[in-house]
Amino acid sequence: MGSTDKIIEPRVLKGFRDVLPAVEMERRRISGILEASFRRYGFVPIDTPVLEYTEVLLGKAGGETEKQIYRFEDHGGRDVAMRFDLTVPFARYIAGNRGELYLPFKRYHIGKVYRGENTQRGRYREFAQCDFDTVGVDSAAADFDILLTIVAAFRAMDIPDVTVRISHRGLFNGLLDRLGIAEHSVELLRVVDKRSKIGEEETARQIADLVGYEAAAEVLEFIRPVNGNRATAEKMIHLAVASASPAGGPATDAATQAAERMRAILGLAEATGIDDVLLVDPSITRGLDYYTGLVFETVLNDLPDIGSVCGGGRYNDLASLYTREHIPGVGASIGMDRLMAALDELGRLAGDRPGADVLVFCLDETLSADYLRVAEALRAGGLNVDVYPESKKLGTQFSYAEKKGIPLGVLFGPEEKTRGTVNLKDLRSRESVDDISLQDAARRAAELLGR
Amino acid sequence: MGSTDKIIEPRVLKGFRDVLPAVEMERRRISGILEASFRRYGFVPIDTPVLEYTEVLLGKAGGETEKQIYRFEDHGGRDVAMRFDLTVPFARYIAGNRGELYLPFKRYHIGKVYRGENTQRGRYREFAQCDFDTVGVDSAAADFDILLTIVAAFRAMDIPDVTVRISHRGLFNGLLDRLGIAEHSVELLRVVDKRSKIGEEETARQIADLVGYEAAAEVLEFIRPVNGNRATAEKMIHLAVASASPAGGPATDAATQAAERMRAILGLAEATGIDDVLLVDPSITRGLDYYTGLVFETVLNDLPDIGSVCGGGRYNDLASLYTREHIPGVGASIGMDRLMAALDELGRLAGDRPGADVLVFCLDETLSADYLRVAEALRAGGLNVDVYPESKKLGTQFSYAEKKGIPLGVLFGPEEKTRGTVNLKDLRSRESVDDISLQDAARRAAELLGR
Repeated sequence: MGSTDKIIEPRVLKGFRDVLPAVEMERRRISGILEASFRRYGFVPIDTPVLEYTEVLLGKAGGETEKQIYRFEDHGGRDVAMRFDLTVPFARYIAGNRGELYLPFKRYHIGKVYRGENTQRGRYREFAQCDFDTVGVDSAAADFDILLTIVAAFRAMDIPDVTVRISHRGLFNGLLDRLGIAEHSVELLRVVDKRSKIGEEETARQIADLVGYEAAAEVLEFIRPVNGNRATAEKMIHLAVASASPAGGPATDAATQAAERMRAILGLAEATGIDDVLLVDPSITRGLDYYTGLVFETVLNDLPDIGSVCGGGRYNDLASLYTREHIPGVGASIGMDRLMAALDELGRLAGDRPGADVLVFCLDETLSADYLRVAEALRAGGLNVDVYPESKKLGTQFSYAEKKGIPLGVLFGPEEKTRGTVNLKDLRSRESVDDISLQDAARRAAELLGR
Repeated sequence: MGSTDKIIEPRVLKGFRDVLPAVEMERRRISGILEASFRRYGFVPIDTPVLEYTEVLLGKAGGETEKQIYRFEDHGGRDVAMRFDLTVPFARYIAGNRGELYLPFKRYHIGKVYRGENTQRGRYREFAQCDFDTVGVDSAAADFDILLTIVAAFRAMDIPDVTVRISHRGLFNGLLDRLGIAEHSVELLRVVDKRSKIGEEETARQIADLVGYEAAAEVLEFIRPVNGNRATAEKMIHLAVASASPAGGPATDAATQAAERMRAILGLAEATGIDDVLLVDPSITRGLDYYTGLVFETVLNDLPDIGSVCGGGRYNDLASLYTREHIPGVGASIGMDRLMAALDELGRLAGDRPGADVLVFCLDETLSADYLRVAEALRAGGLNVDVYPESKKLGTQFSYAEKKGIPLGVLFGPEEKTRGTVNLKDLRSRESVDDISLQDAARRAAELLGR
């Protein structure tokens, strides 16, 4: 292409990103740790298409979702859209592949999702999500399994200091039933959900506006945690299940079952020693009205301000849009971007992760074959080895190694070749061990890398 | 949702696929092996958006590409499209991130690409590609590095029996220059490229139609391999560079350089002992007219009919659409679908890869906490452990383990709990070791799994 041709500006769409190697290496490392944790707990991976029938993705949703979705007509005139989360495709997947799947089904799914919304506040239009769910069973063990997996995954990422705040929507609903204000459920959930943003006073005012002062006082008492998980849970249960209250009707069976479930989950937490990581917080609601049981959010104790990095809960009937089979489930979702940002802020990302362990320098292009042979020998010993592919000034090659974060260098010319030796250089300390055998170099390299 | 509501059919778009866990586990395993191979050779990962400006993706392309692309107008009225390969985004990436990148730059990229073409012949509209390239250098060492990485990657996948067929477009062009038929280059490349499909005779006829019988004879002689890589290469060089031919002009400098490069690559192959895996095949052209140097295709010797599973070559100027900087490169692309199909046919996929190593059975729901404690102890020993999450008939739990491919079971009830023992069952052989300590069970489990 001649220099008079027009150059196209190499821009990316707003809300989309190129990922540089240093960051992508860390994303893959973290993703690998998460996968290993999920596998350790018996979850298996699935994949679904990025593009689906709009009807399938939108279902009965509309409003906000419809406005955000990337939607168009394909070559065959079909109304198609890019997936905006991993939950709806999972529901469709369960229904569509029911004959191939066994229940309970424990799956994880790490993939990109797309939302054409406004990109203020650092939001992206393409971002990775990581979901894991168990469907086809409704038990305390299944609920708790998700919480235990979260704790294990954060420990594996070297962030053991997390708090998983849990609550139970069945108890919240029980309270509303007892107070006779169940019709305000959705608005109440929204108000409680944004409590930390709008403050105690405004929360109280908005709840009172919805249900009056008397009921509001009970709701506010319900969402106020006391000291100790068991105590908080029993206070919630008392307010949700108490059958002698003069204000409302009798406790529902659902509330009684919710109480039993909450106690069972706390029992399992105590038995497995993660009760100090769980915090019963009755103000956790997860806003979305499809949760029916356990709900939870995970906060990093060293970074409480970034909010929840892993939330989820139990839903009653995942795939009801696509099948008449009743499929309950419980699951969690990790926002990978927020997680990566948090890891970065906590200094848990190895920003200088090397592009290779060793660079074999090219001092003399006629020795190309020898450089390759040395590299192959080091690779056979488990090292990641790059070979500088042409004869350039040493300064250029050192600069390449530095930019790529390569910690070690192997250098040799015709004289060393004759003697059958190489020079091994620690590019970080600039210290060099000269004229050693290849075998010694491999051993020393592993030592210098702490292996 | 009541049963009178309309159910949405959980269908996927034609050409798109759900991936079941057994297959997804294998895709991730293979993808992991490829990544480790690339890292071993100093390639680093990048990522780019799935959605880009149509202008950026299409560049000067038109015709076929434009017809195949998923293209639409986004919420901001921008003309956008889904990427149809990983090469164009890489070119744009290099130009757009030039300030952050160092040259030579060795990257790999595994990602999905989208083509709205007709889906006959098992083609998909969403499929994964795996590209790796070195840009910013034009040397025999860089060319050969790509070939060596391919060989290493296939060995790591346990398919050492491959042949990498190589040729050099510079020699082909040299021949055409010498014969004075360079203006037919593109058509000739296309005819030669489909030679194995249309047969020798039809190839000869079509070439003669293009350039006459005399020139055709030389072209046919050029693309005919002889015995031995060095001999074939020297024959190609002789026909491309020979300056005494009465038929045409003198050899070009480019052809002389191509001859030198071809000999250097063969020399490196001999020095590293992979010359028996390389086959000089002058009929390899890779069709696309942007290749300028080395071109290659990789075939599996046990499955020659499926064609090339990894092809590529050297291009002169990757990012010329987006920058005036001249950036040469060499790279390869693996079609993940074809590779997975080939691995399947070769029996190299572990179709029964287990969803976990051990299932802890639930014989008594009051022992939930004990089942979890046992599972946690086994996990701490490095095993992937699933816990059946509710008390169901044993047959149901055995069937679950079988469908999920879990090889081992741990069973215990109140009596064993009192004694502090468990029963370990090999679910494949149905053999059982009863009443052993948890420690013994962990040790025996690892043995039974061959660890």
